[in-house]
Amino acid sequence: MAMAVRYELLSIDRDTGARRGRLHTPHGTIETPVFMPVGTQATVKAMSPEELKEIGAEIILSNTYHLFLRPGHDLVREAGGLHSFMNWDRSILTDSGGFQVFSLSTLRKISEEGVEFRSHISGEKLFLSPEKAIEVENALGADIIMAFDECPPYPASRDYLKDSLERTTRWAKRCKEAHRRPHDQALFGIVQGGMERDLREQSAMELLELDFPGYAVGGLSVGESKPLMQEVLSFTVPLLPKDKPRYLMGVGSPDDLFEGVQRGIDMFDCVLPTRIARNGTCMTSVGKVVIRNAVYARDWEKLDPDCDCYTCRNYSRAYIRHLIKADEIFGLRLTSYHNLYFLVELMRKIRLAIEQNRLLEFKKEFYSQYGYEKII
Amino acid sequence: MAMAVRYELLSIDRDTGARRGRLHTPHGTIETPVFMPVGTQATVKAMSPEELKEIGAEIILSNTYHLFLRPGHDLVREAGGLHSFMNWDRSILTDSGGFQVFSLSTLRKISEEGVEFRSHISGEKLFLSPEKAIEVENALGADIIMAFDECPPYPASRDYLKDSLERTTRWAKRCKEAHRRPHDQALFGIVQGGMERDLREQSAMELLELDFPGYAVGGLSVGESKPLMQEVLSFTVPLLPKDKPRYLMGVGSPDDLFEGVQRGIDMFDCVLPTRIARNGTCMTSVGKVVIRNAVYARDWEKLDPDCDCYTCRNYSRAYIRHLIKADEIFGLRLTSYHNLYFLVELMRKIRLAIEQNRLLEFKKEFYSQYGYEKII
Repeated sequence: MAMAVRYELLSIDRDTGARRGRLHTPHGTIETPVFMPVGTQATVKAMSPEELKEIGAEIILSNTYHLFLRPGHDLVREAGGLHSFMNWDRSILTDSGGFQVFSLSTLRKISEEGVEFRSHISGEKLFLSPEKAIEVENALGADIIMAFDECPPYPASRDYLKDSLERTTRWAKRCKEAHRRPHDQALFGIVQGGMERDLREQSAMELLELDFPGYAVGGLSVGESKPLMQEVLSFTVPLLPKDKPRYLMGVGSPDDLFEGVQRGIDMFDCVLPTRIARNGTCMTSVGKVVIRNAVYARDWEKLDPDCDCYTCRNYSRAYIRHLIKADEIFGLRLTSYHNLYFLVELMRKIRLAIEQNRLLEFKKEFYSQYGYEKII
Repeated sequence: MAMAVRYELLSIDRDTGARRGRLHTPHGTIETPVFMPVGTQATVKAMSPEELKEIGAEIILSNTYHLFLRPGHDLVREAGGLHSFMNWDRSILTDSGGFQVFSLSTLRKISEEGVEFRSHISGEKLFLSPEKAIEVENALGADIIMAFDECPPYPASRDYLKDSLERTTRWAKRCKEAHRRPHDQALFGIVQGGMERDLREQSAMELLELDFPGYAVGGLSVGESKPLMQEVLSFTVPLLPKDKPRYLMGVGSPDDLFEGVQRGIDMFDCVLPTRIARNGTCMTSVGKVVIRNAVYARDWEKLDPDCDCYTCRNYSRAYIRHLIKADEIFGLRLTSYHNLYFLVELMRKIRLAIEQNRLLEFKKEFYSQYGYEKII
């Protein structure tokens, strides 16, 4: 059977092994490495689909847990799937709901069968299992869907991590068996195992046997230090197949993007750019701009002197500050637009740097210009 | 000296006297009768300037009171005025702040000199007088600016109304004297006098002596019945000069637009379309649609079957309902866009009907199709 997605490796950065590639999906081709904006509830907060295209987004992520709760996957299926429901004709990836069940819901009870939990909206008792998660993801109809896994807390004991990863493997098998649309939805496996090298090896080995069309590294960015995350990536990514895409879940600060790409990651997602935008925090080429600050009250320059996005072409910092201070929706639109543009542009530059075998050089330039710690 | 605005009368509806005209301003020509979307804080809530243009808005209103309080008129002047500050190159009208001083602020003290009040944001004690209001409006730089008036409460005694309108006349004179930019900002007078015919006559007569380039009817839509408002319009509008634009302040429900146009009004403004939109209430050709209602949960039709706006071309009622229920900003964008489009389109159709001498016929069609009471 034809695979839903195909990964094409274009080149590898000489110094780091970073990959420049292309991911072909039923809804178009994605240049990788790629940053995926998050549209939790079938909308990337404050943005229109047309604006996402303008920015250059080729794929967005949506959250199975949220859509399962509201409006419900049956309704989205009736709409003709998520693409049609939200008027987005490019690629979509859905997570499995596993992460949110553990982070958002209350009173969860894990068993071999699945997870019982209470909706964080209605308080209703609900159940997600590998089969149920895949049923929901099949109904949503994203190009890439994620296996239902357990994302263990950090820190966790080795015993817990080992039990958990083994259950995640068994669940991955059940996901694969339950999957009804392998021809047009690619099911990715998620490697777990906490910060333990041998457990990551065990998880990867077990999941590779299931021959998924792509693999994610899960269980990172959960509270561990940045050096530790980088170390885990360094020994986990080489365990993954070279001919398939690799996705680092929930990561999207500029420094984490560099570190992930360097270690061979192709895909990233994070709510960071839109979440901080709604708080008035902007990522710019001159570092972090907290636009509420009084210093910007009469600043007639553009938000980011090096940026050509809609926001920066048309509005002053003073105006954006006024809008954010006055709780105006258009302010959130302008900051969200800019932050997403910033990250999508950063990834474009990173792809170019890989093609030119100068990723480390570009990283150095970026850090010296932007100031590593000043960006987020 | 050249006047800032010029009113061109194109035709008059045979049955009603409704006027089809054109208002030439420093920032373009406005086809009248016109509905002006309200951009209280230098932004029409949830909308971009480009979207307002797409909808066909030729002039927007902004509120002097709000901008005086935040970000302050000095700051807007420094930005090069409101047009430049908010990136809107079409016409703008600013009110004088009078209405908001009475409706929003607390602890106000009226004297001949002006009004002392407390900011509804900071609690700070502030003062607006005719001179100060015009100073602020000159700094904002709108194409049309309104005289500082008192909008009396309803009901009010004849004595109060008479005192108030006479003060409004004295204030109008002071506004005219204080006005520093008559060449590129047209100062309109505001006729007061409550619901009393002779007082409206007195107010109009006194203000006409001051020869303003346009006149507003103020003090309506303040709690009186619709028939009473129509009666007051019927005897007030004929008092106004035929060669100048006539503006009915704060009015914008579809039925009020018809009644105002029929009586010779050229300009309207109202927060109604955007305010109800943010609550999920939409004006459509099949009546009022309260999109939160469960009946729309699986309604895959467009919001308004007769509408070609961005919202209606691209999204289902079910999706819009989901967004509004989930408190998503994009939902407010879609409903705001549609409601503004609905009113701007209605005015376009009204202008066409006047040209064709069939305003009453069109009104009848509109009411029978849309259902008078079902629209707002």
